[in-house]
Amino acid sequence: MGGDFAPANVIMGAVEALKETQNRFEIIFVGPEAVIHDQLRRVQANGAAFRIVDAPDVIDMHDGATAVLKQKKNSSIAVGMNLHRDGKADAFVSAGHSGAVMSASTLILGRIEGIGRPTIGAFFPSERGVTLLVDAGANVDCKPQHLFEFGVMGSIYTRQMFGIPSPTVGLLSIGEESSKGNDVVKEAHKLLEGSGLNFVGNVEGRDILKGAVNVVVCDGFVGNILLKFAESVPGFLKFKVKQAAATSALMSVMGLMMKNMMRGVLRSMDYEEYGGVPILGVNGISIIGHGKSTPKAIKNMIFKAEEMVLKNINGKIQEALVLAK
Amino acid sequence: MGGDFAPANVIMGAVEALKETQNRFEIIFVGPEAVIHDQLRRVQANGAAFRIVDAPDVIDMHDGATAVLKQKKNSSIAVGMNLHRDGKADAFVSAGHSGAVMSASTLILGRIEGIGRPTIGAFFPSERGVTLLVDAGANVDCKPQHLFEFGVMGSIYTRQMFGIPSPTVGLLSIGEESSKGNDVVKEAHKLLEGSGLNFVGNVEGRDILKGAVNVVVCDGFVGNILLKFAESVPGFLKFKVKQAAATSALMSVMGLMMKNMMRGVLRSMDYEEYGGVPILGVNGISIIGHGKSTPKAIKNMIFKAEEMVLKNINGKIQEALVLAK
Repeated sequence: MGGDFAPANVIMGAVEALKETQNRFEIIFVGPEAVIHDQLRRVQANGAAFRIVDAPDVIDMHDGATAVLKQKKNSSIAVGMNLHRDGKADAFVSAGHSGAVMSASTLILGRIEGIGRPTIGAFFPSERGVTLLVDAGANVDCKPQHLFEFGVMGSIYTRQMFGIPSPTVGLLSIGEESSKGNDVVKEAHKLLEGSGLNFVGNVEGRDILKGAVNVVVCDGFVGNILLKFAESVPGFLKFKVKQAAATSALMSVMGLMMKNMMRGVLRSMDYEEYGGVPILGVNGISIIGHGKSTPKAIKNMIFKAEEMVLKNINGKIQEALVLAK
Repeated sequence: MGGDFAPANVIMGAVEALKETQNRFEIIFVGPEAVIHDQLRRVQANGAAFRIVDAPDVIDMHDGATAVLKQKKNSSIAVGMNLHRDGKADAFVSAGHSGAVMSASTLILGRIEGIGRPTIGAFFPSERGVTLLVDAGANVDCKPQHLFEFGVMGSIYTRQMFGIPSPTVGLLSIGEESSKGNDVVKEAHKLLEGSGLNFVGNVEGRDILKGAVNVVVCDGFVGNILLKFAESVPGFLKFKVKQAAATSALMSVMGLMMKNMMRGVLRSMDYEEYGGVPILGVNGISIIGHGKSTPKAIKNMIFKAEEMVLKNINGKIQEALVLAK
């Protein structure tokens, strides 16, 4: 039931994932059974390897993240996460209430040993491919140790999932020198420098889109503000183009062309391709999709979950934590 | 001697400001006398109301902000700021070493009574005009009281300089509810709510370009990262357009058109129009220009300084501090 276009997009994307892979895996739809059946009738789901597990409670976007897990024990998030914890599912994905998925992941799955705070990353486009920013909003008021852990998790994720042998890790600050930044960042710099990571030092706000590093480490307060600012850029540019187009007929034609071209240019800023963001540091595979997830985004999110399972990301994070200390 | 194109752009811009206003004010050029004379010979400065005060030391961009003021006592920043403190100049503007200008402003001019930390703002373009973000990098590890002061100073500045009768002030956080944010922001929320400011509550990263408020209050760590990220957006878009243009002849033509149109669209992101950012909270008028300031940017910076003097911004900040408490 997760996301603005649930259950339609969720089911369409999942069925598409099964068809495309010829049932390489099985999908368990968790939600109100009748609603799921009704939706399944609208898509060509014959032969697709799925099951349904009933979860009648639906979490509203206005529900509090932690409280709702106690109040709505039979939500798709709670029921689905329990299936994963109990080994009946290998991974959990949802385009629903981010806070509730984050809370359920931490509370139900538990943390990887050695991880103080699980994290959500965000993918930023860059001149050299994709940059992973951790943390993107799960953790505020972080301690240096938490930033260090984000660096370790981000490094393992990009190495495994993007195939970068030795991902570069940068610490987001307001100057390149190690003396620049706030107190927490200055301490985190020492921890990262002493680790076995490919830590290149501080990076600045301008280095993200440049792709100066593969992994940008920051507090979730900064990360979330930056992520939401970045997400607002395409809308702002569209507004400005529309404004310019209104000034003359020539500008109007150019505006239309520009709009089409910009769509291609800005595609790399699109969450659809990355299919959601992983929660790293929990004892399981849990991915949060965008609220506006299209069927394609849902499909890609499922593929990412499968890949994370097969590559044993969590085992590798645990190994790396031991080595980096 | 400040900025990448000094002294040429500085002198061209200043002479232009005098010509355009028919010597409405007098300009004191502070720097190595011979270099200034040499440069003045290259522009039509006849009849312009300027004087020269020799300041042989030149601050390098690699100099430390505070240390250099002790080592290079005869830099244009130190000498010029002293002229202002001693009442021989009504304002000080520079496109030089930002850190040194900030330090000199605080150390030489001193702080306005009631201000714990002077601040530098930054102007962001928005769908509804310009948004002032304070602090843009002068202060990290802020206390709630500092954020409150930034709100007061930002409100006065935008009211006086942009003519907005009751500027809206938002506190940058990761959710609209007052319960969202880090510890400092949650405390600052209470202080701002209890003030006489037109405080609308928390705003998020996406609200800046939307122009949801006139003044966005944040810690300088967040502000500086955001500012540098925003400044890197036009370069990233140019890179993507160039990349797209390389794919075909048609795309190449469209890319060229788009480049031209984008120039207009992105002009509002241009520091040139705002002519530098003011240091607020010091006992004087001090403006920092962009290192790449054009003559036009220098000219506008001088006009802004004049306007700040005539509007008695500092007197109004002091009054507002008393009222807001």
